[in-house]
Amino acid sequence: MLIVQKFGGTSVGTTERMRNVAARCLAAQREGHDVAVVVSAMSGETNRLLKLVAELHDDPNDREVDVIVSTGEQVSVGLVSLAIRKAGGKARSFLGHQVKIVTDSAFSRARILSIDSEPIREAMARVEIAVIAGFQGVDEQGNITTLGRGGSDTTGVAIAAALKADVCEIYTDVDGVYTTDPNTVPTARKIDRISYEEMLELASLGAKVLQIRSVELGMKYGVPIHVRSSFSDVPGTWVVPEEREMESVVVSGVTVARDEAKITVEDLPDTAGVAAKLFTPLAANNIVVDMIVQNQAWDGTTDLTFTVPQGDRKRALEILKKEVPDLVGFEGERTSCDDEICKISVVGVGMRSHAGVARKMFELLATERINIQLISTSEIKISCVIARKYAELALRVLHEGFALHLPPSERAAL
Amino acid sequence: MLIVQKFGGTSVGTTERMRNVAARCLAAQREGHDVAVVVSAMSGETNRLLKLVAELHDDPNDREVDVIVSTGEQVSVGLVSLAIRKAGGKARSFLGHQVKIVTDSAFSRARILSIDSEPIREAMARVEIAVIAGFQGVDEQGNITTLGRGGSDTTGVAIAAALKADVCEIYTDVDGVYTTDPNTVPTARKIDRISYEEMLELASLGAKVLQIRSVELGMKYGVPIHVRSSFSDVPGTWVVPEEREMESVVVSGVTVARDEAKITVEDLPDTAGVAAKLFTPLAANNIVVDMIVQNQAWDGTTDLTFTVPQGDRKRALEILKKEVPDLVGFEGERTSCDDEICKISVVGVGMRSHAGVARKMFELLATERINIQLISTSEIKISCVIARKYAELALRVLHEGFALHLPPSERAAL
Repeated sequence: MLIVQKFGGTSVGTTERMRNVAARCLAAQREGHDVAVVVSAMSGETNRLLKLVAELHDDPNDREVDVIVSTGEQVSVGLVSLAIRKAGGKARSFLGHQVKIVTDSAFSRARILSIDSEPIREAMARVEIAVIAGFQGVDEQGNITTLGRGGSDTTGVAIAAALKADVCEIYTDVDGVYTTDPNTVPTARKIDRISYEEMLELASLGAKVLQIRSVELGMKYGVPIHVRSSFSDVPGTWVVPEEREMESVVVSGVTVARDEAKITVEDLPDTAGVAAKLFTPLAANNIVVDMIVQNQAWDGTTDLTFTVPQGDRKRALEILKKEVPDLVGFEGERTSCDDEICKISVVGVGMRSHAGVARKMFELLATERINIQLISTSEIKISCVIARKYAELALRVLHEGFALHLPPSERAAL
Repeated sequence: MLIVQKFGGTSVGTTERMRNVAARCLAAQREGHDVAVVVSAMSGETNRLLKLVAELHDDPNDREVDVIVSTGEQVSVGLVSLAIRKAGGKARSFLGHQVKIVTDSAFSRARILSIDSEPIREAMARVEIAVIAGFQGVDEQGNITTLGRGGSDTTGVAIAAALKADVCEIYTDVDGVYTTDPNTVPTARKIDRISYEEMLELASLGAKVLQIRSVELGMKYGVPIHVRSSFSDVPGTWVVPEEREMESVVVSGVTVARDEAKITVEDLPDTAGVAAKLFTPLAANNIVVDMIVQNQAWDGTTDLTFTVPQGDRKRALEILKKEVPDLVGFEGERTSCDDEICKISVVGVGMRSHAGVARKMFELLATERINIQLISTSEIKISCVIARKYAELALRVLHEGFALHLPPSERAAL
């Protein structure tokens, strides 16, 4: 088999832990597999570098910031290569410009355009373990770029896709993907197998175990992803193409996202084009609007409520006041904000063939008198915005209500 | 003018100090000069990285070690670029593989083969300050290399040579080159102008202010080097081609090197080829033998004494015992070692035209009853090996004896 192993920051947090990484990839090599390794920066390192940056600079989307933060992974690949050699193996580090991983030029959130996997194949032919820096690439002009938080996951899956690997193993400090956050709900269960689509929704909706982009790439190129612990040998969670038996599982997981804020604009004229007028300037400023609800009032006016990333809320209001002052008025007059919200979601491919999930979700929240402020749905998920103070309570109620503490086979139908 | 400014680790030790660096290069730009900047790693950073390496690995001459330690300069160029922009200027960082600085593949002590200065010229045409990572390059296969301790000096002078700059300013934590170490001899004077050749000897003989290779490059390409303090505006020391008036200065400086060890082999057969037999295996193992003295004894045998870098002394003995056991015998029997030595040297181009410097040096040491163990001379320097405990005393005696505390014009002839 050809295996790509990706190790996160805690897995390479000390040189001692790097010895474990070395032992693990050499063990895979001894079993007869070809192995390539992708590593993150040592835990804490990226934050240390960003703190230095913050002493001089406000904007993280900057060419020079990528030059600086990409050094974290550079140190890791060198050290892990030394650890593998120390353990008796052969290893060679590869940086983004050496692999080479070409991206667009969107600094701090670049997307991979192409990978030249030939240098890695040559290393494998020499029975060397290729140790590849995660998170970084170069654009077509040779500038260093980075892929955003969690970008090493994406590097791992992209390398696996380029090598047509049999699996991309994502080693992390948890032993898989859970039905919900086990810190909040102790009865949360590890999921054995999950489809790319469900994983994509879970990752988008608050589960932090995989970068969204890495799941997209896995789905696009059909790379099986195995999320597992670097501190044990128990199998983790396989993220794979949808399988027939997955449909019988109505709900796979429950998530909460706390990083959005809500903006409401009241008394808008109920005429065509009003929503477009509001959202066009936001889109032009790269503010992503997530959920939108419009209520028609009896007097011919309308109210519009929507959510934006919490970090963009202040900027969003400023833009609206500047661009469409006639619509938004003064804050406190027609426009109000709420940062104390959260988005709670249930996800499952089984929803496609099972009606009644939404009804049951609303009923469960109602039993605890949790008011639903906004609702949005897709084919395989339902999300509700509620007051943030209810986040943990809602997670527990939904987790128990959908019987996620039981093995999938033992869960009753709705 | 076209100015290359090189800033050492203490000059970029904090982001606050980087603001000073930014102010300084922008001031030069405002005066109408084209400016390129070369920076070292933040002080302490290279040692921090080498400490991590040491937890996994013994040999510093390694491809992966260069991958790791070169990140120090990478962080610095990014931060200094941000500091320049913060101060209102335009800046862009360049790494070794972006400039690009091509070296041989001798990891940890690579030599520069070529520099493509075009990207820097293009930056200058855009009135951007090019901020170039010192110490690092890439070999022809694209592997990252480093130039050895103090290598950023060499990068600075090499960039200045490639750009045909008018001056390479080396900013450091002292305000120039002194007649001797001012910490040991408080009457040491700053030297205003010194020739490349003298500077080369001083750097080779223990003065730590400039990397030897940078002086060689300056001499080869005729780049004037201005060594000065990053914390003040007073002029420092100019390192320039030899000038007529320099010849009137008999001794320019006195140095001490404490990093050598002495090996003595007694009772060698006094026949041709014995020295070659000893030194061939050492050279084959890259051990640099510095000073050599051979004494003929009355009984037809001979004694041979030589010095090697202290770090190589143990290895040198092991090699000799293995390769020429008949010559060296057991330690304590025919072979003895002395780590407690130092090499004290006087340097000056004026020696070429003034006799008597050696005699005076020996006399001065004799007045303090300092025994001379080995002597070596070149056209412009005299070195003596003495017991290390006399190092400071010898420096003071020679400094005063050659009147180096006085301005050159007031020094009496010998």
